[in-house]
Amino acid sequence: MMRTHEAGSLRAGHAGQTVTLSGWVARRRDHGGVIFIDLRDASGVSQVVFREGEMAERAHRLRAEFCVKVTGEVVIRPEGNENPEIPTGSIEITATDLEVLSEAAPLPFPLDEHLEVGEEVRLKHRYLDLRRGEPARIMRLRSEVNRVAREVLHGHEFVEVETPTMTRSTPEGARDFLIPARLQPGSWYALPQSPQLFKQLLMVGGMERYFQIARCYRDEDFRADRQPEFTQLDVEMSFVDQEDVLQLSEEILAGLWKLIDHEIPRPIPRMTYHEAMARYGTDKPDLRFGVELTEMTEYFEDTPFRVFQAPYVGAVVMPGGADQPRRQLDAWQEWAKQRGAKGLAYVLVGEDGDLSGPVAKNLSETEREGLAKAVGANPGDCVFFGAGQRSAARSLLGAARLEIGELCGLIDHDAWSFVWIVDAPMFEPVAEMEAGDVAVGASQWTAVHHPFTSPNADWIDNFDDDPQNALAWAYDIVCNGNEIGGGSIRIHRSDVQQRVFELLGISGEEAQDKFGFLLEAFKYGPPPHGGIAFGWDRICMLLAGADSLRDVIAFPKSGGGFDPLTSAPSPITAEQRKEAGIDAKPGAKKGESGEKKADEQG
Amino acid sequence: MMRTHEAGSLRAGHAGQTVTLSGWVARRRDHGGVIFIDLRDASGVSQVVFREGEMAERAHRLRAEFCVKVTGEVVIRPEGNENPEIPTGSIEITATDLEVLSEAAPLPFPLDEHLEVGEEVRLKHRYLDLRRGEPARIMRLRSEVNRVAREVLHGHEFVEVETPTMTRSTPEGARDFLIPARLQPGSWYALPQSPQLFKQLLMVGGMERYFQIARCYRDEDFRADRQPEFTQLDVEMSFVDQEDVLQLSEEILAGLWKLIDHEIPRPIPRMTYHEAMARYGTDKPDLRFGVELTEMTEYFEDTPFRVFQAPYVGAVVMPGGADQPRRQLDAWQEWAKQRGAKGLAYVLVGEDGDLSGPVAKNLSETEREGLAKAVGANPGDCVFFGAGQRSAARSLLGAARLEIGELCGLIDHDAWSFVWIVDAPMFEPVAEMEAGDVAVGASQWTAVHHPFTSPNADWIDNFDDDPQNALAWAYDIVCNGNEIGGGSIRIHRSDVQQRVFELLGISGEEAQDKFGFLLEAFKYGPPPHGGIAFGWDRICMLLAGADSLRDVIAFPKSGGGFDPLTSAPSPITAEQRKEAGIDAKPGAKKGESGEKKADEQG
Repeated sequence: MMRTHEAGSLRAGHAGQTVTLSGWVARRRDHGGVIFIDLRDASGVSQVVFREGEMAERAHRLRAEFCVKVTGEVVIRPEGNENPEIPTGSIEITATDLEVLSEAAPLPFPLDEHLEVGEEVRLKHRYLDLRRGEPARIMRLRSEVNRVAREVLHGHEFVEVETPTMTRSTPEGARDFLIPARLQPGSWYALPQSPQLFKQLLMVGGMERYFQIARCYRDEDFRADRQPEFTQLDVEMSFVDQEDVLQLSEEILAGLWKLIDHEIPRPIPRMTYHEAMARYGTDKPDLRFGVELTEMTEYFEDTPFRVFQAPYVGAVVMPGGADQPRRQLDAWQEWAKQRGAKGLAYVLVGEDGDLSGPVAKNLSETEREGLAKAVGANPGDCVFFGAGQRSAARSLLGAARLEIGELCGLIDHDAWSFVWIVDAPMFEPVAEMEAGDVAVGASQWTAVHHPFTSPNADWIDNFDDDPQNALAWAYDIVCNGNEIGGGSIRIHRSDVQQRVFELLGISGEEAQDKFGFLLEAFKYGPPPHGGIAFGWDRICMLLAGADSLRDVIAFPKSGGGFDPLTSAPSPITAEQRKEAGIDAKPGAKKGESGEKKADEQG
Repeated sequence: MMRTHEAGSLRAGHAGQTVTLSGWVARRRDHGGVIFIDLRDASGVSQVVFREGEMAERAHRLRAEFCVKVTGEVVIRPEGNENPEIPTGSIEITATDLEVLSEAAPLPFPLDEHLEVGEEVRLKHRYLDLRRGEPARIMRLRSEVNRVAREVLHGHEFVEVETPTMTRSTPEGARDFLIPARLQPGSWYALPQSPQLFKQLLMVGGMERYFQIARCYRDEDFRADRQPEFTQLDVEMSFVDQEDVLQLSEEILAGLWKLIDHEIPRPIPRMTYHEAMARYGTDKPDLRFGVELTEMTEYFEDTPFRVFQAPYVGAVVMPGGADQPRRQLDAWQEWAKQRGAKGLAYVLVGEDGDLSGPVAKNLSETEREGLAKAVGANPGDCVFFGAGQRSAARSLLGAARLEIGELCGLIDHDAWSFVWIVDAPMFEPVAEMEAGDVAVGASQWTAVHHPFTSPNADWIDNFDDDPQNALAWAYDIVCNGNEIGGGSIRIHRSDVQQRVFELLGISGEEAQDKFGFLLEAFKYGPPPHGGIAFGWDRICMLLAGADSLRDVIAFPKSGGGFDPLTSAPSPITAEQRKEAGIDAKPGAKKGESGEKKADEQG
């Protein structure tokens, strides 16, 4: 019998009982020959006292993180010795037996919650890190997140389906990880960037309501907080419209946030993509605070200031920012340059309403006079400007807005703000893609979501006439400025799909090669369908109040996709290389090989 | 509004209501200008009638598997037209509107349940196959299987944790699939054969109760019914003994079989490995029928028959087998040869008790006289013999036993028989490993389970003195002759682990290279722990009454790891190859590279 009770479960009511506990030595103190330890297990901590001569002697060898089994009597702590900070603080166990289950070498870092320890050493010894309260709490929370989401989905008769992870390249805008196929030397599997194609196939298959907490893979140039493998809650539904997907999503999110005792007000507000860009300079606005962008293009229509003679001029106000020291105003310039801008124009509004700063004198008098009112600035504020191409300037101002929110303490860090961003554009110019993304097709347009996203009812007949302005039934859910999910209604009409491919410059041959099996499936009565995928790691991070995605992953990779714990990836042997057929030349032509294989196996 | 009701939900009580349904045209019949269709959705089928001139005309173009939306009035079917075989058989819908949501090309195969269709064409068009009742039912059952298992585990406060799938090679006896690491050219990740090492690390991390429905990967020579990726329910617990793992497992299994209305009698009986081998010739005996092996080694101690002068002689009785025609007795010989045996010796027991067949005359008179009684044969039975090396001969007789069960109709195909096989041996001679398995270590012994399996209490101190007979705390759960799960109590003492490595011929360097990070972790107070993994695909197959693992996988691979649907694996481009760094030479030495990387990223 390893234990009769869990360490964290003991209370005054257990006094007089003989109990056996198993766990770890969290702390050990020696008070004049009497040894005290905090015995920790998954449930919590109890204090154990080794009082008598022999027991104290046996306990003497205990060190931090020894794994032990202790038997003893639960007693009420002497008055004055209670610890109201822990649930077991009114009792202690007087040990009558001790078994060391295993010893611990000196620790590479102390497990005390209050000490800061470098991430690299924590990840290398993640199994020790997980013994700390906070990482353990996060793992348990994540498990609950899964449970609650599945409960909601099962309640709506969703079917959980596992889709393949050794599959064909999926055209989703990032690089695939590849796996050599030993039994078909020269051929490779790809790890899926998402189950997108398979979930659409399940809809063609009449599954109607699908979900999966799915592992996805993207071979990206791991920026600060990306992981080569990540998890999404993947959902797809048939015979639905956007409204159905949004409602279900809100029910899931409400369930998740209830885990941390927050009631999400529903319906979650909606904002169009264009409105978000105009007011907040981003498609994932943080609405925990106000401060909006003001478009000033028209205002500066006839400006003498060369910098503002631009396709777009916008402004954002920093409340009370007029008294920033010179040093801080310089830092803003540096900040803007790191974002690829030339600088960040600003005007300071004096307490008397007068404008100062280098830009002010370049403006016309009319412009100066009306400026504060036009941007909604008060005496003592600072006005920042963005001028240039609309999207770049807005993006800069949107980032400045977030800085302002932090610097001015406008963000309530206990608040939760959710918003749907709807009516996203179908297409964006290839020139404006994010670095590292891979365009599908050869035209000047690429799909903002993916090539299977449906134009909305207003645009389904004429999106090809005006791709710049065509809108999709696509939606993102944003929480505190983080995109935590996104999806779309898919195209189920082959004529529409054909026109989208044409616009994207995807030739018939390329379409056939990349996702011919999906197009083939769509010949057989595909239902109207749509879905959403939630960024599970990010959602867990937000719920846990963690700083990094790595904190919510049991065994995360650090930068460059390196695993500090196992040292993966690592070199392979020449024998492995040979056996895996890595250097084999593919034998037959592409089209044939598949057919041939199929026959052989029939 | 795509639908007001689900097609399978309509009953006589809905008569008079106007409903809208969406789904597929399952069947279309033309009765003198009136068109009938069976409209199918995920919930079932309703009959829709297009009666009036215009409606019938519009319905005329409908073909099988068109996706449609129909509005109409629910009416009670005319007397005599009811269909008691379907739940909606008392009503039909008189259509007043029809919208074709999408058309279907002529189908590659009919979706009628009663038609046999080749598997290859079904898998190539799996999305059509899934529209059939049986495959759809199986997918839904599998989803329920997941739900129920998780419910049991959450009820015991198990924590669901996702472990990495891009990791380091795991030493589990099969080949790894590999993934080139673009950002560390020359280094490779491996897909995990199971989360074994990570779940043990989670136990070191104090997680105490872990589970995961985990994707696992083995690059094997795909035999009949193997998949390169497969799923297991993976469970690990701390501060437990074998009894705890078995009890939890039984609770999970009981929950699963309740899904198909079968109550598993508990506790599930247990049998030692040695008993199973002796009585049934296998470690996964099918106990739905009797027929046991009888050891005859001693009986034939002084036999004049050369073939029986062997280290082991055993027999199995085929009831009523004496009247098998010559042809069938020859077929048994063929059957045995295909299993690598020289043949299958037999004796026929006549109705008068006289023995016949080619072996009989080679036996001594005493042997002949006592034989029937010794093996428990009755007049009219056939006795088969296996002679030679104990394990090979038993294995042949065990297989013969299964054949006998089938041929003689002894197996109740509606019965469920569960048994735990316990007290498995720690080690087996490398020479007796299954083909395709990879030995870890360089000695004549290999681990039957894996090198972290603990010897049981009787053997922990002396397993190295007698590896042949040493027993492990290892257990398999067998259902109807299928191994559906297995696990063990793990070693948590480093001295014991060291001795196991020595016995297996795993050098300190090799251990360090292969699982150094686990050994490192075990320095820090590892708890006693153990667990189990269930073969989830196989369990679903049994529950579904399916013939093949492929039937319970949404998008399975066929032979050779080929996916008939996507044609994966497939050739990659020269550019992909270059970019992925497939041909790069690893830069640093193995040991160093890890450390160096860790520093760079600190």
